[in-house]
Amino acid sequence: MSLYVQKFGGTSVGSVERIHAVADLIERTAKEGHQLVVVLSAMSGETDRLMRMAREICSIPDERELDLLLSSGERVTISLMAMTLRARGIHARSFTGRQVGIVTNNSHTKARISRVAADRVKAALSDGAIPIVAGFQGINELSDVTTLGRGGSDLTAVALAAALKADRCVIYTDVDGVYTADPNVVPNARRLRTLSYEEMLELASLGAKVLQTRSVEFAAKHQVPIEVKSSFTEGQGTLVTREHADMEQVSVSGVAGDSNQAKVTVVGVPDSPGIAGELFGSVAAAGINVDMIIQNVSQETLTDISFTIPRAELPQTLDLVKKVASAINARDVAVKEDIAKVSLVGVGMRSHSGIASRMFQALSREGINIIMISTSEIKVSCVIEEKYLELALRTLHHEFELDKDSTTLK
Amino acid sequence: MSLYVQKFGGTSVGSVERIHAVADLIERTAKEGHQLVVVLSAMSGETDRLMRMAREICSIPDERELDLLLSSGERVTISLMAMTLRARGIHARSFTGRQVGIVTNNSHTKARISRVAADRVKAALSDGAIPIVAGFQGINELSDVTTLGRGGSDLTAVALAAALKADRCVIYTDVDGVYTADPNVVPNARRLRTLSYEEMLELASLGAKVLQTRSVEFAAKHQVPIEVKSSFTEGQGTLVTREHADMEQVSVSGVAGDSNQAKVTVVGVPDSPGIAGELFGSVAAAGINVDMIIQNVSQETLTDISFTIPRAELPQTLDLVKKVASAINARDVAVKEDIAKVSLVGVGMRSHSGIASRMFQALSREGINIIMISTSEIKVSCVIEEKYLELALRTLHHEFELDKDSTTLK
Repeated sequence: MSLYVQKFGGTSVGSVERIHAVADLIERTAKEGHQLVVVLSAMSGETDRLMRMAREICSIPDERELDLLLSSGERVTISLMAMTLRARGIHARSFTGRQVGIVTNNSHTKARISRVAADRVKAALSDGAIPIVAGFQGINELSDVTTLGRGGSDLTAVALAAALKADRCVIYTDVDGVYTADPNVVPNARRLRTLSYEEMLELASLGAKVLQTRSVEFAAKHQVPIEVKSSFTEGQGTLVTREHADMEQVSVSGVAGDSNQAKVTVVGVPDSPGIAGELFGSVAAAGINVDMIIQNVSQETLTDISFTIPRAELPQTLDLVKKVASAINARDVAVKEDIAKVSLVGVGMRSHSGIASRMFQALSREGINIIMISTSEIKVSCVIEEKYLELALRTLHHEFELDKDSTTLK
Repeated sequence: MSLYVQKFGGTSVGSVERIHAVADLIERTAKEGHQLVVVLSAMSGETDRLMRMAREICSIPDERELDLLLSSGERVTISLMAMTLRARGIHARSFTGRQVGIVTNNSHTKARISRVAADRVKAALSDGAIPIVAGFQGINELSDVTTLGRGGSDLTAVALAAALKADRCVIYTDVDGVYTADPNVVPNARRLRTLSYEEMLELASLGAKVLQTRSVEFAAKHQVPIEVKSSFTEGQGTLVTREHADMEQVSVSGVAGDSNQAKVTVVGVPDSPGIAGELFGSVAAAGINVDMIIQNVSQETLTDISFTIPRAELPQTLDLVKKVASAINARDVAVKEDIAKVSLVGVGMRSHSGIASRMFQALSREGINIIMISTSEIKVSCVIEEKYLELALRTLHHEFELDKDSTTLK
């Protein structure tokens, strides 16, 4: 008998019909003899509806109150699901974030889990019941409601799976797994059967919005195997697990694109120590994530510093950077918005050399100019002009034969 | 400096505009220098919307799950209200039923309050904050969410007022007070300036749906003055308080009608001891409230027993009564559904005699036949044919000069 944590996202429980469909799925798993804990998100659209009301009331809602507001959506889905199962004679019981004992720090709207007691969930399991748990929410030490940020229900599921030492955490969503590329852009993208935490992390942070980044980090830390699959169709999904020998057979697991990028260049910076620290210190203090950084020596004593950030944070970044630029007597601040990032990800890169140069050549053959480059052990990223993003994704998908099943590749 | 508990019902907070209007009202009271605790219901229609979803899922939803579901509505209004006030620079803070420490018994969907800790509310008040409290909800000893039944937010407000020894509990609603009769039926009905708990209880149980019965009982027990007033218009409301000398100047305070009535007659019952006990015991065990009971000796050894019940409970009552009737060899069970109850209420009846006979004569003059009569110290009720209800209300309102200000009457 295995213990599974099953998490269902907002579209999976978006209507009474969908709740019945998910109840069917839960019933089937239970009848296979497995122990089950179910984690649910709010109905799709509900969080946005509540957020809209809050914004109608004030432009910057108080975060403690916002957390209480947003946490109401999951209470609706867990109670409806528990009712549905109980009406079918299945012993199910709802538990809120507080009742599960998900204790977080005090960072409202983006709280971090500090511990998971799970006493009532364990008691319910011993009692033969299926606990139906509200995702996305916890309480802080004051017993006020906190929320875990966008996609926080994934984190609830993984944290519970870790606390319960579950055999697997299954994330049901509206896609049937993680693909070698976005199927909307690359028609012959292929579902991956297995993927390492590191690869998933790179893909998640690159905008493959299947799993929340923090939940993958948590799963990696606690070695919780995650399976991503569809609640709408039958069949296998993608298993995200620790790296193993088979994975290294493959050089590249997937290719990802991200057009939510902007590039800022501070032109003519006096080349003296401490300047970069001042510049990026003020940007980091504002909570803005700087991605790539390049420094070019353009003249003997002057340098240009370029960096990329999420495009939405451009106005705030410019405010800060212009102040620093004027303080350090930089010549100018330039902006380029129509850029995108294309990345190759794969643990196999550790053992396969030449991936980066093969990527640059493939892009070059298509006349795609590379503006910036950054690499890590299992990733190569290039910033290119945004208009070439789809072409770049298809080119690289083809170049690295990602449409072919990974196990047949060397 | 007085301490007020202000409660706002669902129509009072039914939209973002209404929330702003109520925030104005709270702000004004606070600026007058009073301490304030605010209790809110869910937005009007929200509880029905959630209930509809539950019924779509199953005909008899599990009550523990239903309570969690229904309790989500108040969390939305309290967080939105606290946000609104905070955006105006007012120090407000939301508290759920649990955070307030409203502990109830385990009767889901109709829980009774066993204690009100109110520690966090007291701390917030000392801190100069306005606590915004979720009505209708508490937790049981297991820390599961319970709800207090229809109109339960009134009870939350009164119980909090008692726990905090507040100077007054103000119930804001969509009418501006308690009237001498239903203004929709009796156009010259007049708003009462003051009313005793006992009178309010009789009127509440008679269907003047201004205040929940249990909250009036609670207020009477703890001597909490309640003021009922409108959140939509300015001006005085009705003060419900303990009986005082002035009240006795008035013989009749109000007249109420209730058409939600049905009469059941068990015909030809053997007149032996224990029969009535058996009959009403089985009805009471099913939680059905029997109102009036009449027993007529029709033959030497046989009797007829008639009683009235809420019309909605007729099918269930008939099931039970037919079983008992057959067990005790009664001749028949007869039903009359087109009846209504009209009642006069007033603490002055204790000192004024002849009210009942004057009532019977007034009804008789209009050709209204009286089917059953019941009296208490401060109430006379008559069951009549339903079609005469409006006429009876207008007749009695006129007969007892209820349109004239009570303080000028003897």
